[in-house]
Amino acid sequence: MRDVSIIGIGQTPVGELWDKSLRHLAHDAIMAALRDAGVKRPDALYIGNMLSGQLAEQEHLGPLVADFIGLHGIEAFKIEAACGSGAAALRVGHMAVAGGLHDLVIVCGLEKMTDATGADTTAGLAMAADQEYEVTHGLSFVALNALLMRRYMYEYGVKHEEFAGFSVNAHRNGAGNPHAMFRHPISATAYHRAAMIADPINLMDSSPICDGAAALILAPSDRGTDGRGGESSRPDVRVLASASATDRLAIHDRRDPLFLEAAYLSSQKAYAQARVAPADLDLFELHDAFSIMSALSLEATGFARRGEGVRWARDDGARIARDGELPISTMGGLKARGHPVGATGVYQIVELVQQLRGEAGVNQVQNARLGMAQNIGGSGATVFTHILATE
Amino acid sequence: MRDVSIIGIGQTPVGELWDKSLRHLAHDAIMAALRDAGVKRPDALYIGNMLSGQLAEQEHLGPLVADFIGLHGIEAFKIEAACGSGAAALRVGHMAVAGGLHDLVIVCGLEKMTDATGADTTAGLAMAADQEYEVTHGLSFVALNALLMRRYMYEYGVKHEEFAGFSVNAHRNGAGNPHAMFRHPISATAYHRAAMIADPINLMDSSPICDGAAALILAPSDRGTDGRGGESSRPDVRVLASASATDRLAIHDRRDPLFLEAAYLSSQKAYAQARVAPADLDLFELHDAFSIMSALSLEATGFARRGEGVRWARDDGARIARDGELPISTMGGLKARGHPVGATGVYQIVELVQQLRGEAGVNQVQNARLGMAQNIGGSGATVFTHILATE
Repeated sequence: MRDVSIIGIGQTPVGELWDKSLRHLAHDAIMAALRDAGVKRPDALYIGNMLSGQLAEQEHLGPLVADFIGLHGIEAFKIEAACGSGAAALRVGHMAVAGGLHDLVIVCGLEKMTDATGADTTAGLAMAADQEYEVTHGLSFVALNALLMRRYMYEYGVKHEEFAGFSVNAHRNGAGNPHAMFRHPISATAYHRAAMIADPINLMDSSPICDGAAALILAPSDRGTDGRGGESSRPDVRVLASASATDRLAIHDRRDPLFLEAAYLSSQKAYAQARVAPADLDLFELHDAFSIMSALSLEATGFARRGEGVRWARDDGARIARDGELPISTMGGLKARGHPVGATGVYQIVELVQQLRGEAGVNQVQNARLGMAQNIGGSGATVFTHILATE
Repeated sequence: MRDVSIIGIGQTPVGELWDKSLRHLAHDAIMAALRDAGVKRPDALYIGNMLSGQLAEQEHLGPLVADFIGLHGIEAFKIEAACGSGAAALRVGHMAVAGGLHDLVIVCGLEKMTDATGADTTAGLAMAADQEYEVTHGLSFVALNALLMRRYMYEYGVKHEEFAGFSVNAHRNGAGNPHAMFRHPISATAYHRAAMIADPINLMDSSPICDGAAALILAPSDRGTDGRGGESSRPDVRVLASASATDRLAIHDRRDPLFLEAAYLSSQKAYAQARVAPADLDLFELHDAFSIMSALSLEATGFARRGEGVRWARDDGARIARDGELPISTMGGLKARGHPVGATGVYQIVELVQQLRGEAGVNQVQNARLGMAQNIGGSGATVFTHILATE
């Protein structure tokens, strides 16, 4: 297998983008990535998306997007793994380049959650859970996460306010990211006072409903100078690990609902592929769709013992801040940058590349050389872990 | 890249399967394929599906199915390319094995179109077309194909009854396939008299709405004897070519609406990969969702000149019959076996493997050694072509 590098990145701002349709969002992100890479005609396009069918009554995004960006003819299709769809598309793109099938590949994460002409967005998101055994009982996706958070608080004697630092850190970083949906810092007090959504999850525990697209250009790391390899002067960022795993879909079927087994499995595979340990990482873009998921992710990936992930949020998240021990959500995370579900996994990679290139502006993590991104589908049923490094 | 073989196949009967949910259909097909291959624990599962979100309000099929078949933990996600989703999943499975990422992979095509709890099935199928430029004007998917058929009849001076042989042949073959939805032959007279759906497409031009799942087990062709390589005594069937291409999504954007450019491109790529010419093929499983698509497919893949594809249907399809010059739809095709959209591409491959192994029963094509399957998404916007051969 060939080593794979990310030679271009692009993203749209995240927000309620009423004047942009699915094809326009994808276009804007992909064109930015092609310009960034200095390439024009890739061989294939893999799109991560969860909700286009349910919300826009549009499937078949492969030719929709390939056509609109002037690349009809190339291989193009959609990959779906709920909120993990973006990283799932990267898995396929990585396979195609690593295996020697294609030399230049576009990976695009794409989601439009506002302006839904089909079903409503909450019903759409519930499709990530088990329809016949969870959703049929009236559980929404937020409610499932609320059950996890309540259980965590009960098992480990944790108070709700102890999670504040995750959201405070995310908003602190979102404030410095021009593409973030929320660009205002929040205080721990604002966190405590936020409106309740599904007890104990309040508005500041939860990532927003929004639109956005992000894109990557992949190429072999050792690609010579055939004129198609990219003319950018930016440093390549190498994919050291690309791993995934699944868990039981319904939470009640899991041996231990508070342990994200798929996050554990996929991060262990990724550490082995990259030959690194958690302590080697300079930053970690984790899947903070809800603040409980930050705590559980830190435990499953080996940064904290069971029940101690929440301790990383102490002191307004000082340990997870840009200058802390392990910077997380460095461009705002799902909470403040926003969580356009099928696009999120690609946004995480785009932001990791920004950090590793030293292009993260005021949000730059100093001496960032090695970083990890973890994208989660559903309440942990599918997890993708990627580790990237500068050459 | 490694050569890839199909070492196991499985399928459910196609029909209105009211007592089977998505997970049960996938289970039945995959378990049959695992038994057929003599293997137990594959490394990954790729699912082709189009409509689970819209019709069953269930996305995230990767862990849903992996969990239900007792393989939670493995990599698993869904691939969507409208009615081409099944072959798209095979593309990903092929990549994974050819590139050396996985050694044993399940590819499953899965669709449940009856018993829809979400939107209605006709609205779901229209998601394969361009929502903002085609569907918004009231076009259903059948209507789009009706426009193509009418245009073909006008351009080439063809009468509707000249297409009869495609449906007569499909039903003749469906009668001998125990998994087919329609197991009765039809006459050309019955074709002419069938109820109109969207003029000129009548009930006998059109594949049915139905449920079904089919599965494949892929492995490296040269896989030694590590105990995981399959203990089946059945002959391997090798994948000689796996190719895809896209066209403009909306028909009005195409240079020539009667030429399936993506079918042309992907079959040319496939011929080059397999180093074969159309005349070398012993059979061709084409995408006869509507009888007009049979004619257009034969033209785009090099079997007929423009406007002459319909001639293959003459004399009750004698040239395309099992003992004809080029057998097509040998197990009933989409028309008579049925077209559970996201599953169809995998059914085509399962049937091709049956023929190449000599296990097609009364439908056996004599001396079948080399065959092609072509799976089409939308009205030709995504096309996948696979060529298989016995060792």
